[in-house]
Amino acid sequence: MAVETSTEKSEAGRLAGILAPVLTPFGQDLAPDARRLARHCRWLLAHGCAALAPFGTTSEANSLSVDEREALLDALVSDGVPAVRLMPGTGCCALPDSVRLTSHAVRRGCAGVLMLPPFYYKGVSDDGLFRGFAEVIERVGDIRLRVYLYHIPPVAQVAIGPRLVERLLRAYPNVVAGMKDSSGDFANTRTLLEAFAKDGFDVFVGSERFLLENLRGGGVGCITATGNVNAAAIERLFASWRSPDADRLQEEVNAIRSVVEKLPVIPALKVIVADHASDPAWVTVRPPLVALAPEKREPLLAELRARGFSMPGLREA
Amino acid sequence: MAVETSTEKSEAGRLAGILAPVLTPFGQDLAPDARRLARHCRWLLAHGCAALAPFGTTSEANSLSVDEREALLDALVSDGVPAVRLMPGTGCCALPDSVRLTSHAVRRGCAGVLMLPPFYYKGVSDDGLFRGFAEVIERVGDIRLRVYLYHIPPVAQVAIGPRLVERLLRAYPNVVAGMKDSSGDFANTRTLLEAFAKDGFDVFVGSERFLLENLRGGGVGCITATGNVNAAAIERLFASWRSPDADRLQEEVNAIRSVVEKLPVIPALKVIVADHASDPAWVTVRPPLVALAPEKREPLLAELRARGFSMPGLREA
Repeated sequence: MAVETSTEKSEAGRLAGILAPVLTPFGQDLAPDARRLARHCRWLLAHGCAALAPFGTTSEANSLSVDEREALLDALVSDGVPAVRLMPGTGCCALPDSVRLTSHAVRRGCAGVLMLPPFYYKGVSDDGLFRGFAEVIERVGDIRLRVYLYHIPPVAQVAIGPRLVERLLRAYPNVVAGMKDSSGDFANTRTLLEAFAKDGFDVFVGSERFLLENLRGGGVGCITATGNVNAAAIERLFASWRSPDADRLQEEVNAIRSVVEKLPVIPALKVIVADHASDPAWVTVRPPLVALAPEKREPLLAELRARGFSMPGLREA
Repeated sequence: MAVETSTEKSEAGRLAGILAPVLTPFGQDLAPDARRLARHCRWLLAHGCAALAPFGTTSEANSLSVDEREALLDALVSDGVPAVRLMPGTGCCALPDSVRLTSHAVRRGCAGVLMLPPFYYKGVSDDGLFRGFAEVIERVGDIRLRVYLYHIPPVAQVAIGPRLVERLLRAYPNVVAGMKDSSGDFANTRTLLEAFAKDGFDVFVGSERFLLENLRGGGVGCITATGNVNAAAIERLFASWRSPDADRLQEEVNAIRSVVEKLPVIPALKVIVADHASDPAWVTVRPPLVALAPEKREPLLAELRARGFSMPGLREA
């Protein structure tokens, strides 16, 4: 399991391995469904995920209010999902929202938080972004806080570049724990690994496509949308990254990812979960996303079946 | 005054003329300052603004929590700022936030709301955006609601194109009242004017640079950052748009705007207000913005003075 192998890549107690940015199920009224969410989280932790990153991009987190995010996290922890295996997303546009969600996650005992930069204003300076992260860290003011910076320029359009990372690490060496690099550009990941990994800065890639390269370069895992459906296979790659089999395992997980990526990823993943859980309610997304068109669902599921894809035990979870 | 001339451009009771997206003052602790905000609003309404658009981009609205936005609007109305002259920004990434702020604005009697699309996900479909606006309109469910769509692709990166406008107008003809076009591209504004202005869709440009063109094309005014400091002059242009003087007045307001636009606009505007109000607290911004560097302040103020710029009565307001 990832939790054990993780000690190979990183300090004991720190997160490593495969994390899923957990899909958020909604009812037909678009209200989040805490019970289904907890069930999916437990299944993921039993099937390849070392830990979970609820309230990420794939979770439609920015389509949730702060109240909804707090209530869902409370429900997960009450429902037995171990907080030490959680890295909830807490970075918002508004400083008080980021402070509130981050404080709440720390109080609940979460292992870390995944923090977007404030993403409304574009072309902002590193000074402004530094001040944004610094204000959150100082206002939360808790030695238990571990921040994973969330770099996802294709969506946030506001980047967290290496110079900003360096400045944050220098100012808050015990708080800034790592990064999720969803740039889709391994050259950027390599820069981060070479500059900061030796100092215990834990780099997760945002796609399993880069998992092997990341591990070979000193990274610790991946936090990936497709972890919601294919974590077991991705975890096998993680566990075997030094074996001669590794390249073949990498190609296998890439092949599944390619099937999903041909479609809008979040709606496609929800269709896959709905099908394998025999639970059609899962297909619902909040606007501005749109559920996958019915005529696109069966071809997706058929293509995955043809590749031997399965989600064992999900129906019974 | 804009309020009277506005009947020339648009139905009685509808907003027209010059609106300022009101700057939000913060204390040194970065808490919003409702008293200073109300004072600035009153001054603006007495010095050229027909109405106000608090919680716009220039207001750092997305750097405020929903609670802060509600409390500030309550404070403004309690403090005597007429709700019928308010068009607060209420569009957020999360549907429940947009619903809550929009309902609140309608209950407070605001003339309209200015609504950003949900702006986290990029490349979303018109179907998804339509559904986003439609859900807000349906959930607010109040015949008094008037929505002004807020198209600001350089910042939001999510556009509200003419086809989406058409669809929203067809579905909600009595609710969708107009648009603020901050594309910076008058060809886009012209498309909107030609397609929708005759049906009472009120087009505001997002910069006074396009005011004269907008009025000549059937638009009703502008909602402009520099309205925070130069509304009186922009209103003179609005009031005289059919006069032989109009082109000269347009050039005059453009010249002031050019001085401000050489710098980061929000911090620069706050420095101008701080100086003319003799109230240094105004310079504070929330991260990710950064206050204007001290060495850049006096050159900005000197250049404005050299052009005869003033904000009469602000010190005493």
